[in-house]
Amino acid sequence: MRQVLVAVLLLSGAPLLAREEARPRAREAGVTVGILQPGPLNAITDVAGVKVGQVTLPRSHDVNTGVTAILPHGGNLFQDKVPAGFVAYNAFGKFMGSTQLAELGEVETPILLTNTLNVAEAAAASVEWTLAQPGNEEVRSVNAVVGETNDGTLNDIRGRHVTVADARRAIETAKEGAVEEGAVGAGSGTIAFGYKAGIGTSSRKLPASLGGWTVGVLVQANYGGVLTIAGVPVGVKLGQYDYRQQVEEKKADGSVVIVIATDAPLSDRNLRRVAERAFGGIARTGSSFSNRSGDYAVAFSTNVAVRRTAAKRNAVAAVEDMPNDRVSPLFQATIEATEEAVLNALFKAQTVVGHRGTAEALPLDKVMPMVAGN
Amino acid sequence: MRQVLVAVLLLSGAPLLAREEARPRAREAGVTVGILQPGPLNAITDVAGVKVGQVTLPRSHDVNTGVTAILPHGGNLFQDKVPAGFVAYNAFGKFMGSTQLAELGEVETPILLTNTLNVAEAAAASVEWTLAQPGNEEVRSVNAVVGETNDGTLNDIRGRHVTVADARRAIETAKEGAVEEGAVGAGSGTIAFGYKAGIGTSSRKLPASLGGWTVGVLVQANYGGVLTIAGVPVGVKLGQYDYRQQVEEKKADGSVVIVIATDAPLSDRNLRRVAERAFGGIARTGSSFSNRSGDYAVAFSTNVAVRRTAAKRNAVAAVEDMPNDRVSPLFQATIEATEEAVLNALFKAQTVVGHRGTAEALPLDKVMPMVAGN
Amino acid sequence: MRQVLVAVLLLSGAPLLAREEARPRAREAGVTVGILQPGPLNAITDVAGVKVGQVTLPRSHDVNTGVTAILPHGGNLFQDKVPAGFVAYNAFGKFMGSTQLAELGEVETPILLTNTLNVAEAAAASVEWTLAQPGNEEVRSVNAVVGETNDGTLNDIRGRHVTVADARRAIETAKEGAVEEGAVGAGSGTIAFGYKAGIGTSSRKLPASLGGWTVGVLVQANYGGVLTIAGVPVGVKLGQYDYRQQVEEKKADGSVVIVIATDAPLSDRNLRRVAERAFGGIARTGSSFSNRSGDYAVAFSTNVAVRRTAAKRNAVAAVEDMPNDRVSPLFQATIEATEEAVLNALFKAQTVVGHRGTAEALPLDKVMPMVAGN
Amino acid sequence: MRQVLVAVLLLSGAPLLAREEARPRAREAGVTVGILQPGPLNAITDVAGVKVGQVTLPRSHDVNTGVTAILPHGGNLFQDKVPAGFVAYNAFGKFMGSTQLAELGEVETPILLTNTLNVAEAAAASVEWTLAQPGNEEVRSVNAVVGETNDGTLNDIRGRHVTVADARRAIETAKEGAVEEGAVGAGSGTIAFGYKAGIGTSSRKLPASLGGWTVGVLVQANYGGVLTIAGVPVGVKLGQYDYRQQVEEKKADGSVVIVIATDAPLSDRNLRRVAERAFGGIARTGSSFSNRSGDYAVAFSTNVAVRRTAAKRNAVAAVEDMPNDRVSPLFQATIEATEEAVLNALFKAQTVVGHRGTAEALPLDKVMPMVAGN
Repeated sequence: MRQVLVAVLLLSGAPLLAREEARPRAREAGVTVGILQPGPLNAITDVAGVKVGQVTLPRSHDVNTGVTAILPHGGNLFQDKVPAGFVAYNAFGKFMGSTQLAELGEVETPILLTNTLNVAEAAAASVEWTLAQPGNEEVRSVNAVVGETNDGTLNDIRGRHVTVADARRAIETAKEGAVEEGAVGAGSGTIAFGYKAGIGTSSRKLPASLGGWTVGVLVQANYGGVLTIAGVPVGVKLGQYDYRQQVEEKKADGSVVIVIATDAPLSDRNLRRVAERAFGGIARTGSSFSNRSGDYAVAFSTNVAVRRTAAKRNAVAAVEDMPNDRVSPLFQATIEATEEAVLNALFKAQTVVGHRGTAEALPLDKVMPMVAGN
Repeated sequence: MRQVLVAVLLLSGAPLLAREEARPRAREAGVTVGILQPGPLNAITDVAGVKVGQVTLPRSHDVNTGVTAILPHGGNLFQDKVPAGFVAYNAFGKFMGSTQLAELGEVETPILLTNTLNVAEAAAASVEWTLAQPGNEEVRSVNAVVGETNDGTLNDIRGRHVTVADARRAIETAKEGAVEEGAVGAGSGTIAFGYKAGIGTSSRKLPASLGGWTVGVLVQANYGGVLTIAGVPVGVKLGQYDYRQQVEEKKADGSVVIVIATDAPLSDRNLRRVAERAFGGIARTGSSFSNRSGDYAVAFSTNVAVRRTAAKRNAVAAVEDMPNDRVSPLFQATIEATEEAVLNALFKAQTVVGHRGTAEALPLDKVMPMVAGN
Repeated sequence: MRQVLVAVLLLSGAPLLAREEARPRAREAGVTVGILQPGPLNAITDVAGVKVGQVTLPRSHDVNTGVTAILPHGGNLFQDKVPAGFVAYNAFGKFMGSTQLAELGEVETPILLTNTLNVAEAAAASVEWTLAQPGNEEVRSVNAVVGETNDGTLNDIRGRHVTVADARRAIETAKEGAVEEGAVGAGSGTIAFGYKAGIGTSSRKLPASLGGWTVGVLVQANYGGVLTIAGVPVGVKLGQYDYRQQVEEKKADGSVVIVIATDAPLSDRNLRRVAERAFGGIARTGSSFSNRSGDYAVAFSTNVAVRRTAAKRNAVAAVEDMPNDRVSPLFQATIEATEEAVLNALFKAQTVVGHRGTAEALPLDKVMPMVAGN
Repeated sequence: MRQVLVAVLLLSGAPLLAREEARPRAREAGVTVGILQPGPLNAITDVAGVKVGQVTLPRSHDVNTGVTAILPHGGNLFQDKVPAGFVAYNAFGKFMGSTQLAELGEVETPILLTNTLNVAEAAAASVEWTLAQPGNEEVRSVNAVVGETNDGTLNDIRGRHVTVADARRAIETAKEGAVEEGAVGAGSGTIAFGYKAGIGTSSRKLPASLGGWTVGVLVQANYGGVLTIAGVPVGVKLGQYDYRQQVEEKKADGSVVIVIATDAPLSDRNLRRVAERAFGGIARTGSSFSNRSGDYAVAFSTNVAVRRTAAKRNAVAAVEDMPNDRVSPLFQATIEATEEAVLNALFKAQTVVGHRGTAEALPLDKVMPMVAGN
């Protein structure tokens, strides 16, 4: 069976996508996470206005990489900045733009994800695109926000194949609606817990009694540990997780970048607290948070009452603020949506044969009986 | 039945201890966590030299509180400081001594835990005791390290019943060996996930091929969320966790303080990274990391090759250092031991009827069938 | 002459105060700092509503210490919290309450200053006083904010002479209006640059075109380096600063705690940025920011539009916000007022003969010719 | 070609290079800063092994920018990493590589400085160069460290003129010995306090009794405030500093990036503390640390006893450590060398006529009488 898949993969990328579409998301497969309900798309794009664009480089044996772009809204991001918070849980990574983001509490560009050695190209695209936006003719300072994980097993990362044009295309093709998951965009070549992973997304919508706010999460999953699905230590049961491998950091290695959107009117400080909670979701998937894992989260609010428009950036202005005592449900929502987003990345991704090895798809036929009834 | 217990409780502390001793630790009950093995005591005291002292105030309907002291070694802590790291995951708490600990990367006193409104008394005891130690006659600066959680449901916390003498006694009675768990010391009045919790401890010993280092954890558990035991959402199954309650923060509220000891020769920076991983273990127990939860961790190394003796504090000196690339197994050990320490606090703690309510013991008869075979 | 002064000092505290009153503030002596103008009192109390209370323990040869309390407003501080920011520039110190302050971005108690070994007593007073305030009957969590510096040369600091009652009295006697400076309150026994220092205060009022906001600063000065007054390296010229002494940390040692108030409607994030700037003022006085100097700043806003009242803490509410692009004049004001507050502490303090030595007053007769015309 | 340029420059800014060489450094002009002595070169290259490379783009009316590279040593930086610390005093900037630097406490690449909108190109050069170094054939993760300031007044920054090749050339031409200062490399287009500034450097060598360690500093100066030279508020006296301009942030704007090298065997934690002190030197030059100023410092140690060689990165190893109690002289040295490095940038830089205006050279004929005898 595997040989057949490999054969198909080597022929073209088309059958591959077909297979990917055939795989279920975690919830479709019967795995539920947490106590809150997802939004209609169960995606970061359930937060109104958020756009996602993904560019997957033409696949080959050696090239399995790409770019994912998240746009907080469809307007001029530089002129109408969004409040944001940032957390580096384990900073073995090259996340760019974090210091200004934290100091000023805002994001003014798309948030881009790519591979470790192409951060510079993604940043160049973000700067160029921002400078070129109508209304930005006088802009001379741009804080590009770029995250990355290392896809160097499946991708010839030293080849630095992502171009500025690729990254720009991810920005320009971003759209609302459903988000493609698995081995796509910045997740084209990533691996989690020894299985092919990639991009995953999920959301939670609070009930009206709690304000009805939505939290949406998108992850670039590329890390390790003992895979745990809905509490079941699947990694142990599958024999995929090997103790020696753990200590040799062969499978625990990697990284995860988490992007969180919400329409709740949070301050940058409380957005940072939201970002911190995302790692609770990562922990529940079995992460070891190993030394070489670059684990970062960035959270932003799309609420117009906290948006930093030109008017509000120039004078004392009224803003709305959700107080500390009301943020806990958003924390719970973030933990749950992050855990489910990772599962979605694993459930959707197909096997990829690449540069220095193969990453098998999560064997759902074996996994689902393990987690059934949990 | 509850009335009987109350009667017994009001008579003396002895029957209470008897009941507590009768309850199993998580592992004794058949719950295993993670892939690594515990040390012989499965306690923070598996790290050689670490001492724990606990003072439980004489119990009454209104007073359910106390002090727990952790001493990194049995010598003069001020003269022979230990490297240490600190993390405030969610800092709705009154942890004292953290800024100097982080700046200098060291602990020079016992680490004390108590209730929220008696931090001052514990700090005074730490200072007095340090000044009085032989060899400290010229000491004029002492950085007391005190953590706390809020036991205000079971304990008349506004009465501020812990005295300086109580806290000092916890230091002076500290000893190596087995650690009492459950409703004892600083855990006398704490509640987690709606059940009586308290002090819990656990450890992991790495195999010789990995250096054979030990990681020991002690927690003061007092927080909420959806109780999850070995991956099973027990809180949901027990009906203990109620959605409305979550959002009203009735049961998600609280805090946790985590103390981590290791004999590995870690730098203060890597000890901070170890402390950060503890929250992975907390996440796996189902924490919501809610707004009002003060979640802190402090980690120290007992290894003499990194101890800051008078000689090493006065001149350039040789120290040992475990490099970044070798710390991952200690991270995994910390996550596992933290999760198990919380479970031990819940498994061991008996029902306590207190100041403003009752916290039932975790109903092991109901819980164990839920988690069996997981 | 000095012997006469000593004799007078030993007789009573009264002539001492008289002498202190006779000494000019820096600006009265002709030293101006910066380009902005001070408020009417040139004190932290120029920010409307701010109260300062100081308790100086009855002086003796061995006891030279006390407490200074700063109250952000005259109402119930716990119920009507103020947004606040905190910075530990060099955290060799025991500042208490900082983690919750930073996490929640607020202060809910008086800010107390005292000596290093009496932080616990000041904290106990803050907790007790807060619990006892009308309207706080249900309060079970209080985040006491206490700073300190080490007065162990002039004060028998190991004797731990400050009582809970002393600290409480500082809170209860706090008042608006002029602030006593020099060897008073928490500055009774502190030394800066080898000279007697103590409490100092200053303010800046922005012109109406810039909003007319006021920034007020109060310092507890107890640090070292090369004393620099209005840019003149007075420490070198006086021979007070000795190179060997520097490297032996005999005179560079110490600490400074800086409290900054403003009526501008700043977010907690921008208040943290204001706090950071205070160290620019400290640098200009010649600080070496030596290893053993505990250098902390806390800034709060008294503006009612950002005050966290019960109503605003319970639901999404409108607040005002001064944007990033408008805060720079407040930064400049903070730098200037901090520098001048330190000079005031030095200019006003009289000679104190104490426990383990004598700290001479800054010899204004020698200093003023050095700085004249600068 | 250069002669042509010089000729062109003679029309406006003219015998630019000639004039620049003719201008004295601050100390040569008679300005001394602090109490410690500089090393032989009074440059960051007084720290043995440190190399500096600078590429100035061919000047034109519109292009005034470049790259400065600092190499901690002449070996394979990736294989033999240096411990390092990082501080963002005010993070309105795009400093890249800071999170991994802080998490792992090390630098593994050259440190590059350039203009705000060319960080991506500098990063790409750093990655490419590192991948290409002999011995790095298996490297798949590179943490490029790039700082920047905004030269958008003199330089057509939106044109993004710095290429990857330019940045790589700065790395490849780096050398030990004297460092060119003023309008060169990454300082080609920068302005400080309204005057042409650029790259400046300075050093301090501690006496043998203190270990004889050297601290070297290099700055990219591009910020504002009230220019203060050796304590004299020259900005006010020159009428260059205007109150309205300050508040309108016309001249206070900008940034500074500070690179600090030392041969003392410091831990990454104490290197971070060294980096923090640099801002004391910046404060003394009159900085307002305004909102839009991106003020960053990175410090590293060249001492082989703390170098992270392949052997030391793979197993517990002996390292040397200078303890907390011995670092203060290095703090003082850092403050002084940073202040003097900024003055050198200003003293050496010649007038530049550029893209959107002219930055005059600091008028030494007017300035020196003001500071004489101070």
